Amino acid sequence: MSHIMLRCTACGAGHHADMATLACRECSSPLQVEYQERAERHAPPGGSNAGDIPLPFHGSESGVSLGEGDTPSVKLSRSGELLDLNELYAKLEFLNPTGSFKDRGTAVMMFVAKENGVTEIVEDSSGNAGASVAAYAARAGIKAHIFAPATAPAAKLRQIKVYGAEVHAIPGSREDTTAAAVAYYRERGLVYASHALSPYFLEGTKSFAYEVAEQFGSALPDHIVLPVGNGSLLIGAWIGFQELRDAGRVAKAPRLHCVQTRAVMPIASAYQKTAWSVGDAGATVAGGIAVAAPARQREILEVLRDTHGVAVAVEEDDILRWKERLARREGIFAEPTSAAAFAGLEQLVSQGTVAAEDRVLVPVTGFGLKDDA
Amino acid sequence: MSHIMLRCTACGAGHHADMATLACRECSSPLQVEYQERAERHAPPGGSNAGDIPLPFHGSESGVSLGEGDTPSVKLSRSGELLDLNELYAKLEFLNPTGSFKDRGTAVMMFVAKENGVTEIVEDSSGNAGASVAAYAARAGIKAHIFAPATAPAAKLRQIKVYGAEVHAIPGSREDTTAAAVAYYRERGLVYASHALSPYFLEGTKSFAYEVAEQFGSALPDHIVLPVGNGSLLIGAWIGFQELRDAGRVAKAPRLHCVQTRAVMPIASAYQKTAWSVGDAGATVAGGIAVAAPARQREILEVLRDTHGVAVAVEEDDILRWKERLARREGIFAEPTSAAAFAGLEQLVSQGTVAAEDRVLVPVTGFGLKDDA
Repeated sequence: MSHIMLRCTACGAGHHADMATLACRECSSPLQVEYQERAERHAPPGGSNAGDIPLPFHGSESGVSLGEGDTPSVKLSRSGELLDLNELYAKLEFLNPTGSFKDRGTAVMMFVAKENGVTEIVEDSSGNAGASVAAYAARAGIKAHIFAPATAPAAKLRQIKVYGAEVHAIPGSREDTTAAAVAYYRERGLVYASHALSPYFLEGTKSFAYEVAEQFGSALPDHIVLPVGNGSLLIGAWIGFQELRDAGRVAKAPRLHCVQTRAVMPIASAYQKTAWSVGDAGATVAGGIAVAAPARQREILEVLRDTHGVAVAVEEDDILRWKERLARREGIFAEPTSAAAFAGLEQLVSQGTVAAEDRVLVPVTGFGLKDDA
Repeated sequence: MSHIMLRCTACGAGHHADMATLACRECSSPLQVEYQERAERHAPPGGSNAGDIPLPFHGSESGVSLGEGDTPSVKLSRSGELLDLNELYAKLEFLNPTGSFKDRGTAVMMFVAKENGVTEIVEDSSGNAGASVAAYAARAGIKAHIFAPATAPAAKLRQIKVYGAEVHAIPGSREDTTAAAVAYYRERGLVYASHALSPYFLEGTKSFAYEVAEQFGSALPDHIVLPVGNGSLLIGAWIGFQELRDAGRVAKAPRLHCVQTRAVMPIASAYQKTAWSVGDAGATVAGGIAVAAPARQREILEVLRDTHGVAVAVEEDDILRWKERLARREGIFAEPTSAAAFAGLEQLVSQGTVAAEDRVLVPVTGFGLKDDA
């Protein structure tokens, strides 16, 4: 992979690009892909109409794609009215092959894995990323070990097993699951295909920004409001919008806002400069954003700073209220994690961050069928 | 709706187009839409790249669409090898807003309902169509009564309820469910938005054919193998391919083949001229094709005749084997009904109907998350 290198997001050290390097060898911070002068450009995997963009793999057709991306954006008139917004849109990211936006990241990560001859991987996930990695591993003919909290929704664990992955259900916290996965891959010398750490996963999620630019043209959203756990969609979207801006394809990137649950709010508390620690984490219906110590917290806060984004935390009741509202008013069956973003938008409107005349986009990141709380 | 009329599929009688007329007043056979000289042309609802096609509604943006259609087609190399086929593709119809192809039909049916001022509807469904109608009714602000067999998969019934529809769970056979729905709408003077009977529903599913033409271009599939219950995708696809042929956009339409389960095989037995009656219907894992007396049987058989299609019936074990195979080899989580089509394709290959060098397309009609048998 000589056309790319991996750059530390904290100290700036450069590293040779491979599947084994997931953190800076100098300071242990997460890495991002940096393209060399003559970066290869490819259409993103799947049916995306994003055009050719810099991507970290060589072949354009590896047989790994499941048609991810190219999700529809629909106007939510009734919810817009309720929030006093003229233009509220949802991008239906749950219409990806395994039912969540994760497939964008997984597809690119698994393209790279396949090109690097990887045959067995380890991943840890609260559910959606695990199902996504299990599916693409099945398609690529790669054996997958998925570590998930034993408390993950039964439908998500079943889905991971359906794809033939070996599920390791770990009791305890989300962090215990990660620790078990790390111990396992180190002991066996396997590749850790971590959606939270892999720089290739981020490169996959950036197609979201390209599609938004394509779908909205010059009438780009003023705000994009995202549920944030590990932050891969938020960071990926920002990478995409920066590339689009550098290429002169968008004039001004949207403000990217972060929504968390009050039960698990490391980013929202860091943004608001209030005290919060991993030990404060409580139970939540929004399993997809129950990440108490996000590896890329520094990057997430940078995105908020760079885009004038805001971080808010929402109540469990409001998440469930919006889940019901989306289904009953818009015909959109979102998982609680996705509904949280709308509860967050409600806060952003009431605190004046989002104004009535602003154009707002919310990704519906996961299918309610997977997590029918 | 003066730009269209409804034509009887048996005796040819013409009828004024409205939401109440679901069968010929002369002979009680099902109806199809017929466009007048100056048919209105619209882009199909959703994100489809099918171009402008004749459609039975007026406005192009009624706010009812959920971005249905425009589903990806992906190559199944490993399953192709297994079947000795060079070119096997799946069109991932489960990547529609409620997780099944039904959304294509429902969107157009509900566009028409909305334009006609309908405020309350009745539908009966084994699950997928019920969820689809419930979702689009929610979005259109129309009250929906969904009648479903009490034995329908729990996840499907839950999904219908999530969208706020009133679920009427009916004990007994699939036919008992229909009878209860009919009695209910007649008694209350409501509109019967039946996916099995509505001619507008068929007009919605035809976008499938337009997308296949767009995705495959001059290398159109030689065969499309479909699971058939009520047959709305098969008939809709055929309407689409006929329009495309008449417009000179495709030279030769694919052969459309019908797959049923041996447990419920009215079409396969009629095609094979073997004895079968409603009383022979048995239990099946493929609930979506458990239709013992399809209202449009005559039309389905006509499609087979016109396209040189074949009807086969498959074993329950083979359905489940293919469901597992698709998940573990291709990363595609299909519901059993959809897996049945692949079991049918296996028969078509072994009986010589489909040859090694033929290009084959199978729609994966419903998401396995909804029916995790």
